[in-house]
Amino acid sequence: MNTGKNRQFRLASRPVGDITPNNFEYREEPIPSPSDGEVLVRNIYLSLDPTNRIWMSDRPQYMPPVAIGQVMRGGGIGVVEESKHPNFHPGDLVSGLLGWQDYALALGNTGNGISKLPSPLPCPLTAFVGPLGATGITAYCGFLDIGQPQAGETVVVSAAAGAVGSVVGQIAKIKNCRVVGITSSDEKCRWLLEELGFDDAINYKTANLETALAQSCPDGIDIYFDNVGGAILDAVLTKINLHARIPLCGLISAYNATEPVPGPYNYSQILMQRAKIQGFIILDYLPRFPEAMQELGQWLNQGKIKYKLEIVEGLENAPSAILKLFDGNKIGKLAVKVADEPV
Amino acid sequence: MNTGKNRQFRLASRPVGDITPNNFEYREEPIPSPSDGEVLVRNIYLSLDPTNRIWMSDRPQYMPPVAIGQVMRGGGIGVVEESKHPNFHPGDLVSGLLGWQDYALALGNTGNGISKLPSPLPCPLTAFVGPLGATGITAYCGFLDIGQPQAGETVVVSAAAGAVGSVVGQIAKIKNCRVVGITSSDEKCRWLLEELGFDDAINYKTANLETALAQSCPDGIDIYFDNVGGAILDAVLTKINLHARIPLCGLISAYNATEPVPGPYNYSQILMQRAKIQGFIILDYLPRFPEAMQELGQWLNQGKIKYKLEIVEGLENAPSAILKLFDGNKIGKLAVKVADEPV
Repeated sequence: MNTGKNRQFRLASRPVGDITPNNFEYREEPIPSPSDGEVLVRNIYLSLDPTNRIWMSDRPQYMPPVAIGQVMRGGGIGVVEESKHPNFHPGDLVSGLLGWQDYALALGNTGNGISKLPSPLPCPLTAFVGPLGATGITAYCGFLDIGQPQAGETVVVSAAAGAVGSVVGQIAKIKNCRVVGITSSDEKCRWLLEELGFDDAINYKTANLETALAQSCPDGIDIYFDNVGGAILDAVLTKINLHARIPLCGLISAYNATEPVPGPYNYSQILMQRAKIQGFIILDYLPRFPEAMQELGQWLNQGKIKYKLEIVEGLENAPSAILKLFDGNKIGKLAVKVADEPV
Repeated sequence: MNTGKNRQFRLASRPVGDITPNNFEYREEPIPSPSDGEVLVRNIYLSLDPTNRIWMSDRPQYMPPVAIGQVMRGGGIGVVEESKHPNFHPGDLVSGLLGWQDYALALGNTGNGISKLPSPLPCPLTAFVGPLGATGITAYCGFLDIGQPQAGETVVVSAAAGAVGSVVGQIAKIKNCRVVGITSSDEKCRWLLEELGFDDAINYKTANLETALAQSCPDGIDIYFDNVGGAILDAVLTKINLHARIPLCGLISAYNATEPVPGPYNYSQILMQRAKIQGFIILDYLPRFPEAMQELGQWLNQGKIKYKLEIVEGLENAPSAILKLFDGNKIGKLAVKVADEPV
């Protein structure tokens, strides 16, 4: 049994517009003991993702919102400390919605599912926070399943330097597509072009987006992987080809909105170009996780998928770190290191 | 050779907002003579459809807009008067984009394709303006192909008493779905319920649409066949089920707009419910016309598909008749009788 404390951040209030650190309340609780069927997990990495913002709002969404007073929900990676479940043993590395805390109870009646990571690990543990984690698998399943890329097609991805977008673009290159990333700084553009092999990159903050898209996509746009919605979606819609596919992965442009947000003004292009917009959530693809992790892992080891991970030290910094998702400066994946990796 | 005149309406100006009869110019031209490979068709019925409004505007669309000075484009049914094409003979009944005129030249270099109707006719000729015409086939292909209806699912259709919507709802009943129609008058609601066998019908002009949908669709909405867009789409989006399908057939709410029209405010529901919106145009389904006509014809003869056709007498009335598409009073299909049917 462990005798320390379980540090937690609970949702104290719902953000109005931007998240502030005051939306979270710090608590220290005793470390829980697992009941029969349960597992005690010590958290190592906490994943911070734009979808966390959705969970903080009390509006229609794909899971119940986090209740006020509840431990903030978050994906993470941890190690089993104590197990009363036959399939898990101390030392097992696991991933799941472990929450903003040092220790999580999983399985059993808590309903909080965890999955074992491969043993031995085929690559550094941090890769499972990045391209082999939920964001990489999101990119893999949504782009391949809904996008149905064909060699030679033009793919545009927004939030292209983000955790999902950067993997989408690299998979599109593996599938021999022309890939154009839309992002928010010249530094990110350089990373996409020089490190990740994108064919072109557009800084939407300085470019005229419609003009830039016309130059970058002389044959039009066949697939638009949308992470943001809003004005960028509208600009893309002016350039889509017949039978374009738009996997709808996120709408970060609307997450902090305090007023109703209109859908795309160029919505009629969906009709005119006989295009498809299809929303998806990674939870729909759970059965494909093993396939996705295996293929992404191969690409990773072959150097075809690269990633950048920004790790903020210390659970205590999670409430301020999450703001980095929305300030436009983040490149790649963001995570908090809650505890050291097991040696 | 024919010695009469060819009465025509040409597009004189583009509508700003609503169509007015002044947008058309009346002309009398000589009846043309077919060159090699061409066919001269005498028009019998001219189909009037909301999509005609799209063609009158100079904005992105699925075919080139009608040019100013060009004969107004329109679907129709006619009889071959003279043929210099080996596959067509005088007396053949044909359908195609014959235009707002007494006589059309088809095939050959004009590029204006026509298709022969079945001979002998399996049902009255007028059925080929209605459920066996482009609007019925639109309903058939879009609903079945994109909607993928399963028995027991709930289907909502807008412009439900229109030429397309009324057929969608009846096919949905044939497929053992629960069918709710949204329309604009109590008279239309009665027609849907009493004649066409819809399970429920909502007059959106007098009902609170979200409340009415909640009552009519206690199990949520699995398929929304959208003919209108706008506020009705927004209300429907609040009630869609996981993995809902939205065949996007038309956006009549926006056709007369003079300002940019926002997309749905509840667009995020597409993500949250992992729904699919897919635009389609009947031209994409040309290879399926024979199959669609055969099955629709069987349903028609079995009494499973009913239709209402409003026929306006005389080509000279086309410019005023088309306004009926937008005033909310039309039930079923609208057409103009240009000439008597062959005896």
